[in-house]
Amino acid sequence: MGIELGVLKIERKILEKNDEIAHSIRGLFKEHNIFTLNLVSSPGSGKTSIVEKTIKECKEKFRIAVIEGDIQTDLDARRIDASGIPVVQIITHGACHLEANLIRDSIKNINMKEVDLIIIENVGNLVCPSGYDLGEDHKVVIVSTTEGDDKPLKYPAMFRNSSVLIINKIDLLPHLHSSIEELEKNALAINPSLTIFKTSCVSGDGINEWCNWLLSKMKKQ
Amino acid sequence: MGIELGVLKIERKILEKNDEIAHSIRGLFKEHNIFTLNLVSSPGSGKTSIVEKTIKECKEKFRIAVIEGDIQTDLDARRIDASGIPVVQIITHGACHLEANLIRDSIKNINMKEVDLIIIENVGNLVCPSGYDLGEDHKVVIVSTTEGDDKPLKYPAMFRNSSVLIINKIDLLPHLHSSIEELEKNALAINPSLTIFKTSCVSGDGINEWCNWLLSKMKKQ
Repeated sequence: MGIELGVLKIERKILEKNDEIAHSIRGLFKEHNIFTLNLVSSPGSGKTSIVEKTIKECKEKFRIAVIEGDIQTDLDARRIDASGIPVVQIITHGACHLEANLIRDSIKNINMKEVDLIIIENVGNLVCPSGYDLGEDHKVVIVSTTEGDDKPLKYPAMFRNSSVLIINKIDLLPHLHSSIEELEKNALAINPSLTIFKTSCVSGDGINEWCNWLLSKMKKQ
Repeated sequence: MGIELGVLKIERKILEKNDEIAHSIRGLFKEHNIFTLNLVSSPGSGKTSIVEKTIKECKEKFRIAVIEGDIQTDLDARRIDASGIPVVQIITHGACHLEANLIRDSIKNINMKEVDLIIIENVGNLVCPSGYDLGEDHKVVIVSTTEGDDKPLKYPAMFRNSSVLIINKIDLLPHLHSSIEELEKNALAINPSLTIFKTSCVSGDGINEWCNWLLSKMKKQ
């Protein structure tokens, strides 16, 4: 019991410290007029592909930099690097989520005067990253159609703490038994204010709508 | 820095305590001649479907009980309950993995004299459950083909700590760009002693091979 209480106390301290750093990063982003996204999802939902498509569609319209969070390997950072966009790699060496102090350290490698949008790709994990503010404007949760339609009910914190949901891999829908309507219904039951996009990085469906929304949000900033 | 050190120390204490409890559960399982699996994967890889198929294929051959680990909802436990098999639900209320003390408590609800196999379905998370021994004979990692072929490299601990890999949803392979050969190669690069099965819970492919392996292991016990 002593151990569990100790963990709870330290977790609260870590979250408080994280929120404090996130608050200061958010101020820094605002100061430089930088819009920021924190992409969260299960492994393999297509986060990196969404980042690649967003870069391709938007890089002529605004200047983008990417922060790649991975437990191991720089495979994703290399994919982004091929787009000719500044990318900073964070390897967590086993840790299951990114924290604000890692973002604070990594943005030292980004020329903030030359960036309009920073996309943070979190570690693939539908649980642990949900509680950690990274100073972003929007937490964007990505779910692929192949994961089934019950995920918002089973992993509610991530859907509650995100403001945008991207339902990815819609090209596979004809081959699946899960229902995209049911998935949307379940997501909105957890968080009625979610903005929802339906995308395929294979066919390109929905990428335009997503990028238009992004552009409109950035203009309003 | 003080906080991080504190966390490391407490994490070590938790893991030590977990291993101690797991050791005692393992003894209890052996005493009752019960074979145990700990199923781990990302959300939506098909763990519950694999459990359902295993029950359907094997329930005439040996007596099965299931422990369902979920962050929220009893959706999976209800699916298993429909198979007519004893099922115990653990809801973690936000926690990202099962620990041995939860298994110790939940097996009090299972009549150990009337069970040959206990299947533990862990929380959907390819990171955190990897370090927690639950007293099982085999940790079985499930990856669906739709998650891409690079997951063993990006989430190595889970593949290193498992003895069996099930590559699920092989019916979707014709519609994907990822390579099952590459996935196998990457998994074996991380853990050369992995036993690999390729399954589809839609077509039923590979379920027979998986169940035959299970039966052969249980007979040897």
